[in-house]
Amino acid sequence: MIGPPMTSTSTSSEAPVEQLALTSYVLGLGDDALILAQRLGQWITRAPQIEEDIALGNIALDLLGQARTLLSYAGELEAAGRDEDDLAFLRDEREFHNIQLVEIENGDFAVTMARQLIFSAYQYELYSALLTSADPTLSALAGKAVKEVDYHRDHAAMWVLRLGDGTPESHGRMQAALDRVGPYVDEIFDSTDAVTALPGIAADPAALRPGWTAYVQNVIAGATLTFPTPKWRSRGGRDGYHSENLGHLLPEMQNLHRSHPGASW
Amino acid sequence: MIGPPMTSTSTSSEAPVEQLALTSYVLGLGDDALILAQRLGQWITRAPQIEEDIALGNIALDLLGQARTLLSYAGELEAAGRDEDDLAFLRDEREFHNIQLVEIENGDFAVTMARQLIFSAYQYELYSALLTSADPTLSALAGKAVKEVDYHRDHAAMWVLRLGDGTPESHGRMQAALDRVGPYVDEIFDSTDAVTALPGIAADPAALRPGWTAYVQNVIAGATLTFPTPKWRSRGGRDGYHSENLGHLLPEMQNLHRSHPGASW
Repeated sequence: MIGPPMTSTSTSSEAPVEQLALTSYVLGLGDDALILAQRLGQWITRAPQIEEDIALGNIALDLLGQARTLLSYAGELEAAGRDEDDLAFLRDEREFHNIQLVEIENGDFAVTMARQLIFSAYQYELYSALLTSADPTLSALAGKAVKEVDYHRDHAAMWVLRLGDGTPESHGRMQAALDRVGPYVDEIFDSTDAVTALPGIAADPAALRPGWTAYVQNVIAGATLTFPTPKWRSRGGRDGYHSENLGHLLPEMQNLHRSHPGASW
Repeated sequence: MIGPPMTSTSTSSEAPVEQLALTSYVLGLGDDALILAQRLGQWITRAPQIEEDIALGNIALDLLGQARTLLSYAGELEAAGRDEDDLAFLRDEREFHNIQLVEIENGDFAVTMARQLIFSAYQYELYSALLTSADPTLSALAGKAVKEVDYHRDHAAMWVLRLGDGTPESHGRMQAALDRVGPYVDEIFDSTDAVTALPGIAADPAALRPGWTAYVQNVIAGATLTFPTPKWRSRGGRDGYHSENLGHLLPEMQNLHRSHPGASW
């Protein structure tokens, strides 16, 4: 054989439309995990207990592992062939495809836990659906990740119950936290062109909502809290539209890598 | 039996001098791990590669686990009986007993790796010695921790070799990083009254230095670097004397816990 081996994922016989859609879909899921890992990493040694520092740190590392797999796969799918570090550290804000929920600031511990409940319950439904994806990379990732996010979901539910059904102050702050993240819920379940173009491969977000709602409503009711009824809703994160929070987060995340472009260290 | 059970560690027959010394010794080791974990946590999603984010995050979590065991044990030994969270989050700067090496700012990636090499090579000698400590809590911790820090040491050595024996720029920055942390080395091996009072229990820092030197010198030579010859040396961290770096770090670490003293959340 002459020349380098062809990669399994970018043969010229593949339909370019589907490949573009798959790249976009995978990038969106990877960016969700990457950005939330960054936010959770900020809690290390700042949580109310050392045990909790360790728990949040482990959750952040699970998400970073998922992000690495997803961004690495997106890079293989791209014609440009960027690796996971190029994708994490060299894209600009408009090129990030995460939902806006993951980029909002941590706020107090209750806000972080409200987001964890909402996001990890969504990821649990997502990876459960992707177990049967026709894409072998996604189904393999889902098999590992669904166990991780099952723990993340339990962990968040435990805290929401403890705070919501705790003292009057903790109840009030937990309710305020749910109200804070409420506007970012609908966007999670918006469909995208990429999802529509990938039947049997991607998980339709709208189809994940009933399972998500059943779980989250149950936790919120058990915690004597009320599901928020927001007056507005976020939209467009998957298309690169972001809140100013991402603008603050990216320079912190990308500074070191960008200071030494292409360097071997 | 009437009344609560006595704890195994605070019977009135125990020599108070030895108990005070042990508390002080254990606090020092715990504070080293806690403060460095805080510093390393700052690298999550900010390292030059996602793989490295994950590695540094795992190292931070290993250190947090060690800190939790040590501070919990120190709390049991204290007459006041504080738990590990009281000790982590409610002490003031002068009550922290860590060596100053762990509190200095991360600097660039090379400085962080220089500190990792120096500190993890020390912890490897420390925990190796504590394997045969007459104190069963310390010897049990050492059995688990020595495997963790063996990996930390290898990881740091790999980076120091890669940067030192890399490009002219990476070599220059790695040497500058060693020079930055050089003044904090001697303090690691200073003896303390606590150590002197605990023969067979504590590890004499001076006795750890030959093994440390052999390992570190070998890495530095392999990396074509020069061991620093500092013009001054830090001292007094174990007695509560700290650089201003700790004064910046503690409020970040303690803010949330202190905002809700004694709260159940």
